[in-house]
Amino acid sequence: MTRTVGILGGGQLGRMLALAGYPLCITCRVYDPAPDACAGQVAPHYCGAYHDWQKLTAFADGVECLTYEFENVPLDTALWLAERVPVCPTPEALRLFQDRLLEKQALQANGVPVPTFAEVDPDCPMQALEQVGLPAVLKTRRFGYDGKGQAVVHTHEEYLQAVQTLGSQPLILEAFVPFERELSLIAIRGLKGEMRFYPLVENHHREGILRLTLAPAPNLTPDLQAQAEQHARTVMERLDYVGVMTIEWFLVRDRLLANEVAPRVHNSGHWTIEGAETSQFENHLRAIVGLPLGSVGLRGYSAMVNLVGTIPPIESVLAIPNAHLHLYGKSPRHGRKVGHITLRTDTEAERDHWLAQIWERLQCPLP
Amino acid sequence: MTRTVGILGGGQLGRMLALAGYPLCITCRVYDPAPDACAGQVAPHYCGAYHDWQKLTAFADGVECLTYEFENVPLDTALWLAERVPVCPTPEALRLFQDRLLEKQALQANGVPVPTFAEVDPDCPMQALEQVGLPAVLKTRRFGYDGKGQAVVHTHEEYLQAVQTLGSQPLILEAFVPFERELSLIAIRGLKGEMRFYPLVENHHREGILRLTLAPAPNLTPDLQAQAEQHARTVMERLDYVGVMTIEWFLVRDRLLANEVAPRVHNSGHWTIEGAETSQFENHLRAIVGLPLGSVGLRGYSAMVNLVGTIPPIESVLAIPNAHLHLYGKSPRHGRKVGHITLRTDTEAERDHWLAQIWERLQCPLP
Repeated sequence: MTRTVGILGGGQLGRMLALAGYPLCITCRVYDPAPDACAGQVAPHYCGAYHDWQKLTAFADGVECLTYEFENVPLDTALWLAERVPVCPTPEALRLFQDRLLEKQALQANGVPVPTFAEVDPDCPMQALEQVGLPAVLKTRRFGYDGKGQAVVHTHEEYLQAVQTLGSQPLILEAFVPFERELSLIAIRGLKGEMRFYPLVENHHREGILRLTLAPAPNLTPDLQAQAEQHARTVMERLDYVGVMTIEWFLVRDRLLANEVAPRVHNSGHWTIEGAETSQFENHLRAIVGLPLGSVGLRGYSAMVNLVGTIPPIESVLAIPNAHLHLYGKSPRHGRKVGHITLRTDTEAERDHWLAQIWERLQCPLP
Repeated sequence: MTRTVGILGGGQLGRMLALAGYPLCITCRVYDPAPDACAGQVAPHYCGAYHDWQKLTAFADGVECLTYEFENVPLDTALWLAERVPVCPTPEALRLFQDRLLEKQALQANGVPVPTFAEVDPDCPMQALEQVGLPAVLKTRRFGYDGKGQAVVHTHEEYLQAVQTLGSQPLILEAFVPFERELSLIAIRGLKGEMRFYPLVENHHREGILRLTLAPAPNLTPDLQAQAEQHARTVMERLDYVGVMTIEWFLVRDRLLANEVAPRVHNSGHWTIEGAETSQFENHLRAIVGLPLGSVGLRGYSAMVNLVGTIPPIESVLAIPNAHLHLYGKSPRHGRKVGHITLRTDTEAERDHWLAQIWERLQCPLP
């Protein structure tokens, strides 16, 4: 009766996926090289390297399908596993979205607007600069997250300096986008091709780390939502994608430019646990095991505040009406996401009122 | 950072308590003599008899407090544990509410209206009948659940027959109440004495088993809610009660008569997972570890349908918008609760519409 799903990666996303599975009798197991992977507190943890084929064999044994909770799983691992059990989304999606260059090329090929970009040839870096112009953002093609592996450059000198600093890895140069807002779309496609889209949300970062998500994005227009859905639909169909896919957007004068794609559940979708009828975690699991997708309807207004680096006094947070706390069971460390708070209210005004209270109690600056 | 709570009993209530604990970094462990106790699928399971003091010692080692998920834990076990770690609610509440006679006496002593009742003296059973009259309900004082251990009697002969059938155990006779509706109240009291009350809900049984809960109870008046809260408040304060307490009521001509009390989270509160701001499970944990209680505000209208005996085709259930499935990981067996569905909607009309759909898809008679 119980079905088993394997998750590559055992961080907080894997933890929340596992918790979402139990009520549906979907038991998740996680694979993570870190012995203290926090999802291991709530689900069976297979601890091994991503090229330990013996451990991976044991991990894949008896699972209905495999998925990932982070996109830096080595591609050859995903391909090797896909020969043995269904892997959703497909390794092809992983291949594209774990590399910023392939990602942008794939988006562009599907008619999704992206910032101007160019591959950086380490032997001839000025070529990319000529194509992209200044200011620009130099990024490693792979393994970047939370603002790591990137540098904003305003001059030729800064650019060449940054190429030297980051240049041991393949690089991409992107035009710096003077965006008004950062938004993201959580989309889901099921095994039979059905799709659902949560409303666009607005994201605020500090030091490259997501701090706050507002759901729905303030002043969201039907046109903007339709633009985002249309692009997500095209990409998911083209890739025969199954599961949750997140697209981060820059909003520039009412136009969306895709910033990046995550082939997985996403930090900017955590609010869906309380703020939507069905959470992104449950919907991802429903999608990959072939169950009907759940409603993505909103329950009022939500704000998701990341807890980064330290865990605040939880009594004061829980004393806020309609505040929901999620701790990940990770030891606090500078810059590390250790939990989040979701505030859910019936009106936007209430949300803003209590959100101000949360910042005060967390004693942290507004993002 | 993680706190540990021990739960005596490892059924579905323990399972849902454990799942509610993880986001707060409260790890629950369960104690249950049954090797296949379903909470053991989501939390560490200590398997032992209720008088296995060695196993109980290991179970209690390192927990912040202990609680129960069913009231038939032997009283001496609870008392023995309470000498070692805090037990919430207190064993005194367990003592009263695991015995229908003590329960009714305690309610009466606190001014809570109850049906006429009398202890049955096995040597002189007619005495109780004279006090209570006919029709009446003969019940075992202990270990009754889901309609087990009771008989409705309409004549002297039926009564004496029932006394003979059930008479190996202590019995209580209660007046048969021609109630209009069955309601229940889920109340919570925190460590510092603060209290919260979910709205009264309406319960429908078939063959003695709860089949359907409507939340809030249709046509609920502020006066009725106030009556129920007032009584719950009195009882919880008198007992210095900590945690969730459930009172089941008969409604007779706008007056509430207490039917029974459960010193624990309750089947008629399952809807709170989706239908209330904070679930009964999270609030019980918050209460017993001394965290602030969460909002008991409603999120629209809910209906909770128990899955009894068999698991329906889950695809058809999950295809209903706003239907949430909870399976307990138990093997189906006649009369056994194996899961539930909660339907949450924004209007009462929508709830009734989709509820009719659920009955149809479950292909089971209306309760």
